[in-house]
Amino acid sequence: MIKKRKLGRGVALVGAGMSKFDMFKDRDSKDLFLEAFQNMLASVDKGCNPQEIDALYVGNFTNDFFVHQSHWGAILSDALSFVPRPATRTEGACASSALAFREGVFAIASGFYDAVLVGGVEDMSKGSTEEVAEGLSLAAIPYESQVGFTFPGVFGTIATAYFERYGASRDHLMNVTIKSHENAARNPKAQLNASMEDVMAARIKRAESKGRPTPTWIDAKAFLNDPRANPAVAWPIHVFDCCPISDGASCLLLVGEDIAKNFTDDPLYVAGMGQGSGRGLHAAQDLTSFEATRYAAHEAYEMSGLGPKDIQFAEVHDCFSIAELLHIEDLGFFKAGEGYKAVEEGHTRLEGSKPINTSGGLKCKGHPVGATGAAQLVEVWTQLRQQAGQRQVSGDLKFGAAHNLGGTGGTSTFTILERR
Amino acid sequence: MIKKRKLGRGVALVGAGMSKFDMFKDRDSKDLFLEAFQNMLASVDKGCNPQEIDALYVGNFTNDFFVHQSHWGAILSDALSFVPRPATRTEGACASSALAFREGVFAIASGFYDAVLVGGVEDMSKGSTEEVAEGLSLAAIPYESQVGFTFPGVFGTIATAYFERYGASRDHLMNVTIKSHENAARNPKAQLNASMEDVMAARIKRAESKGRPTPTWIDAKAFLNDPRANPAVAWPIHVFDCCPISDGASCLLLVGEDIAKNFTDDPLYVAGMGQGSGRGLHAAQDLTSFEATRYAAHEAYEMSGLGPKDIQFAEVHDCFSIAELLHIEDLGFFKAGEGYKAVEEGHTRLEGSKPINTSGGLKCKGHPVGATGAAQLVEVWTQLRQQAGQRQVSGDLKFGAAHNLGGTGGTSTFTILERR
Repeated sequence: MIKKRKLGRGVALVGAGMSKFDMFKDRDSKDLFLEAFQNMLASVDKGCNPQEIDALYVGNFTNDFFVHQSHWGAILSDALSFVPRPATRTEGACASSALAFREGVFAIASGFYDAVLVGGVEDMSKGSTEEVAEGLSLAAIPYESQVGFTFPGVFGTIATAYFERYGASRDHLMNVTIKSHENAARNPKAQLNASMEDVMAARIKRAESKGRPTPTWIDAKAFLNDPRANPAVAWPIHVFDCCPISDGASCLLLVGEDIAKNFTDDPLYVAGMGQGSGRGLHAAQDLTSFEATRYAAHEAYEMSGLGPKDIQFAEVHDCFSIAELLHIEDLGFFKAGEGYKAVEEGHTRLEGSKPINTSGGLKCKGHPVGATGAAQLVEVWTQLRQQAGQRQVSGDLKFGAAHNLGGTGGTSTFTILERR
Repeated sequence: MIKKRKLGRGVALVGAGMSKFDMFKDRDSKDLFLEAFQNMLASVDKGCNPQEIDALYVGNFTNDFFVHQSHWGAILSDALSFVPRPATRTEGACASSALAFREGVFAIASGFYDAVLVGGVEDMSKGSTEEVAEGLSLAAIPYESQVGFTFPGVFGTIATAYFERYGASRDHLMNVTIKSHENAARNPKAQLNASMEDVMAARIKRAESKGRPTPTWIDAKAFLNDPRANPAVAWPIHVFDCCPISDGASCLLLVGEDIAKNFTDDPLYVAGMGQGSGRGLHAAQDLTSFEATRYAAHEAYEMSGLGPKDIQFAEVHDCFSIAELLHIEDLGFFKAGEGYKAVEEGHTRLEGSKPINTSGGLKCKGHPVGATGAAQLVEVWTQLRQQAGQRQVSGDLKFGAAHNLGGTGGTSTFTILERR
């Protein structure tokens, strides 16, 4: 059904950087994006004069609503001293900066530009809980929010359907959470830079400092099963199944494949790229699969000539733990209904056969929504170039991928990077 | 300074359509976009099966704020039955759909897609005056809105600077307004589908029907000088210098030049394309010129090998009458400081040497912000193909152009279309 996609000019990735992800009281989008930009510049092996960059694409989802300011292309172009060079904002809810990446690829592949900065930024933590909940609901398909669905509600419903259909349980969601924390403990940029053991130790310390009885959890699952430690949000989704509210930024430098070696002897290449759209829960034939993701994956695999087996590790959009299970199935890494078993068997751990969310994922690295898609590709860059330190996937890495989801499945992207 | 831009694959325009522009109590963005889409489909000479369209780009600026819904790519993809094909929203304030057009061009020129639908939509009229004013201020550069500038305030300041520097006066702004109404009276899609004579006749009729004294204006300028008929908003900007609040949608079908003849024997071609960004008033060296526009124009002229003399007619971003004067100078149609004289001499009228805003412009056609950039190109399509009826520019038309401005100059685009 899907035509074979190709690019008339190859596109390479020659730099990548991100800000620390966290909730910052005193940092705004410009400040965060500048940190990501500086880190990106520092990552370009042979250096990059910012004057060489032809254009900027920036993904942002909620700044209109949360900080009452739109037109971030122009504002960031000014902040980076790019004026009068062009800047464009893309928006696809939580997939906003994967869309920016894609437009940067097209702009270069078209022959129009040679070097394009792409990235994303989000500044979510300044609003009240109510404002944040309302703002995020703008991403959902209207039919969902109008009947009172929240994001945890949607993913709780999906989890229930998945449990019912395939025999999984909350225990299997916990395996995802525990693995995310394991990885994030090794990622200094992560917002929740702590293993489950660290989390439990901190809770015990806090209880003791307040003179409360010392909690006694025999392991992480006991903690996650303790309703005081990990209360339900929308059953079976509990607090530790949810990504946090985050501020942060990420960016990448794309150039024509033909000039990549001017920037580094070790560029990465865009091997495959796909994007799809979806209708939302009200119209889903199957609550345990995202049509948009399957389409995006198909497009990217077709373009690259690769299949799921060739992808050695991936970042996937784990806005909730259940989402990770669906995605690793929709992307073809595991068969439908077998993702939760693969996670249980350790296949998705750092030392497993298919490491997933080595960064800690949205759950622990954080999810500044507009920054996430590009930040996932920063992790793929870091892993492929063997620069991930304590969380480095072992072995010779050639293909890594990132999957980004917008809203409740309205937009989905899949991008395969190659190291030659 | 600017590198010569080129596209690796030529891109053609094979269909164009827009909705009626107006303030609609009972129509939403989906409804408006569907009208534009149907009109676009009807314009494709040899027909188009919507299944042949690979992707959608849609410009939208304020729906997050005004209708509390983001993620319009996905929503419109669903409304058009495009799912699971991809959809991306672009935002650059009032230039949002010129950015969508540009991304569609890149996506095709890259070789990735063959046929892409691009357009824009905006649904502005449902909010209160205060909400609309606040929402629009999100487009401005923060330094401007923080000190209390509104859009009319910014353009009033610009007009004052222009008057001071070049000796123009309110009388010269009125020439722009009168010409816009002349053209809009011949455009059935225009929101203010009325000449100044029609406007005055309606006011007289209303006065009579209410038993008030019959106004006696000797001509349109007397009307525009009457502070009851045309009150000041931010001197020298009066009500008739401002575009209205509008709802509407527009869309265009782009395809690879190599397959254009499958859709029509009379396609148009993207001859030149440019985009720039600007810092805002606080940093402007010169209040009477937009740096972003000069950059965009330079890029487009370089790509096309054309100059201002080659452009036979153009749509320019007349959010306020003064803006039209600046743009026709920044685009090189007239020398700096001579635009107002050219308008006075009739050069920009339909029968003049350089017809400007033959559609009636933003001032009279209406300005549903996210729809405007694509709607300008709908007018260029209509004129180049000799389908503009009563407002058709005479003669053999080969090159027409559209200029779209975002915010107070933060983003600017210039696009040159060619009929061969």
